[in-house]
Amino acid sequence: MSVTAAKGFQAAGIAAGIKDSGNPDLALVVNRGPRLAAAGVFTSNRVKAAPVLWSEQVLKGGLVSAVVLNSGGANACTGPKGFQDTHATAEKVAEALELSAGEVAVASTGLIGELLPMDKVLPGVDKAASQLSEHGGEKAAIAIKTTDSVHKTAVYEGHGWTVGGMAKGAGMLAPGLATMLVVLTTDAALDSEVLDKALRDATRVTFDRVDSDGCMSTNDTVLLLASGAAEVTPGYEEFAKAVRLVCDDLGRQLIGDAEGASKDIKVEVINAASEDEAVEVGRSIARNNLLKCAIHGEDPNWGRVLSAIGTTKATFEPDELNVAINGVWVCKNGGVGEDREKVDMRYREVVVTADLAAGTETATIWTNDLTADYVHENSAYSS
Amino acid sequence: MSVTAAKGFQAAGIAAGIKDSGNPDLALVVNRGPRLAAAGVFTSNRVKAAPVLWSEQVLKGGLVSAVVLNSGGANACTGPKGFQDTHATAEKVAEALELSAGEVAVASTGLIGELLPMDKVLPGVDKAASQLSEHGGEKAAIAIKTTDSVHKTAVYEGHGWTVGGMAKGAGMLAPGLATMLVVLTTDAALDSEVLDKALRDATRVTFDRVDSDGCMSTNDTVLLLASGAAEVTPGYEEFAKAVRLVCDDLGRQLIGDAEGASKDIKVEVINAASEDEAVEVGRSIARNNLLKCAIHGEDPNWGRVLSAIGTTKATFEPDELNVAINGVWVCKNGGVGEDREKVDMRYREVVVTADLAAGTETATIWTNDLTADYVHENSAYSS
Repeated sequence: MSVTAAKGFQAAGIAAGIKDSGNPDLALVVNRGPRLAAAGVFTSNRVKAAPVLWSEQVLKGGLVSAVVLNSGGANACTGPKGFQDTHATAEKVAEALELSAGEVAVASTGLIGELLPMDKVLPGVDKAASQLSEHGGEKAAIAIKTTDSVHKTAVYEGHGWTVGGMAKGAGMLAPGLATMLVVLTTDAALDSEVLDKALRDATRVTFDRVDSDGCMSTNDTVLLLASGAAEVTPGYEEFAKAVRLVCDDLGRQLIGDAEGASKDIKVEVINAASEDEAVEVGRSIARNNLLKCAIHGEDPNWGRVLSAIGTTKATFEPDELNVAINGVWVCKNGGVGEDREKVDMRYREVVVTADLAAGTETATIWTNDLTADYVHENSAYSS
Repeated sequence: MSVTAAKGFQAAGIAAGIKDSGNPDLALVVNRGPRLAAAGVFTSNRVKAAPVLWSEQVLKGGLVSAVVLNSGGANACTGPKGFQDTHATAEKVAEALELSAGEVAVASTGLIGELLPMDKVLPGVDKAASQLSEHGGEKAAIAIKTTDSVHKTAVYEGHGWTVGGMAKGAGMLAPGLATMLVVLTTDAALDSEVLDKALRDATRVTFDRVDSDGCMSTNDTVLLLASGAAEVTPGYEEFAKAVRLVCDDLGRQLIGDAEGASKDIKVEVINAASEDEAVEVGRSIARNNLLKCAIHGEDPNWGRVLSAIGTTKATFEPDELNVAINGVWVCKNGGVGEDREKVDMRYREVVVTADLAAGTETATIWTNDLTADYVHENSAYSS
């Protein structure tokens, strides 16, 4: 269902030949209206890919009639020529669909530092335009995969309206968005200001708290498009919840498919003095390579959790810290707690709970374990 | 030569039975004077091991007559009992050598969260005291090894005075000192204020810029002891240089022996607006898991360098960044530079140079690649 679950949208996914493998590598999502409202959130990396620079400008207008996405090349660190290529791609979409290029967003993913093969991309746009369909959401989700082992989609059904979406991402997953391209669509009748607020409220507590490997991408893009085709305007809280649930679902799918990972690790920080401090501590734990290795080895090495907490500026006293792994409080008051032999770590999901004993705020960060497979995938990626 | 290269020092290294393997695990370094001046630098982790809390107090007095070090257990996150054990160890040294316990520093390394076997440690102190020798430096260096594959020592010969030292450390190497225990000795006649300044000036640009895996230890300790036995007082600049060179030498040995590493990576940041910004950018590059994997795969993936720079707040323009790998400028002006095929990465040392084009300051951070062996060593460490 994906991006075509909501009424008013068409999509396509095709093989343009950008990837040497011949796998699908170009997707098109078109909003047929009646509204063209849109919002976007982009990487906070200061080195931004050409399509991010382009799409940020497009989104300032609050209107998006189409999104063209490619895998097989990030078009990042490609200079003025890279930006011209993004521009030409948007113009090509506009020409094929009789739209304004200023309302066409572009997203790319793949290797940094190489120009896209425009002799493949531009004919690919025509091919995708010819295959647009109200049932094309699945194909579009498949065409944006890079090292993803599965395509990722999610849908929320409201009362007479729908939010659907697709995502790609399997590595370079870190805050300020993970390395991800996400397109969400809805047929609710909403303007771009409401979309923007709902999208930011949702990404702040979902994608921004997915931190697989601490590496921030140059290409992260999350778009939310509204067609208004359902002719229903839900209340803000209800709509915002729908967007948050779809983002949360997609975020969990990203973690579940992270490169080389064998464990999905939920880092819960509780009893923090503030939400910001809870997030700071959660990230520090989630990024600790030694702990990530220990969890890979199914070793409840809580000392590495304390060591990670100790590097933060959060409010806590070392001798008041408590840590549970899968519900067993292996560290109490900064020292040895329950018997570590009680911890069962055989399953994919591992929950690390850090109790700061400093307040009432909480935050959850999702990460993965560090594995030999991660090293293998990422040492051979561009060679 | 190690800690007994300088006159006035004795040392010993013995097997106390703390390690199940029966390998040496307890070292003693004694300053026979005439002076007992000392300085120390400790982990900036807020979760500090018991011996760190103890030794910080000892060093406030500026006098150290002996240092007792053990491997096989960190005595971190061990609560009041752990601190009592550290205290008892210092008292035992004082009793065996007829010293004041308040002048005995203690350092420990090994697994966090377990009490030391004091029935092994205390008899071990007596055994070490009985074997003290002016030639014991090598044995002491061997006794503090954990996952180190080799022991680490360095010596600098001044005009009539000497600085020598030993170090251990192979993992959890990150700033605010790496996971390391270091004891430096000198026979120069200097007071503790001069030692303190020279030690801080040296560690700031050496150990603090060793960042193997971004993980900060609870036990880092660097001590500098002066006996005055050479009866020579060198000028500050000369002495500070000697301490810096010995620290630099030991720091390079730590990187060269980092757990599972196959590459030593020198990250040079040049043309930064300030030294602090150069360090910030250097650390961001040094901690990028994706880049560390790429270097392991001998892949000059400069896009990951730019992506890491882009996450910092340093002064730069994305389209003015230049990156060289082993001297080949593979990225120029934020885009593709020289042919990446020219980069020869077959050797252990890899130099990544990031030119921020924003000023005249520089900094160098040392790190390692990320390997399957690192994952293996750290997923099986405490099991």
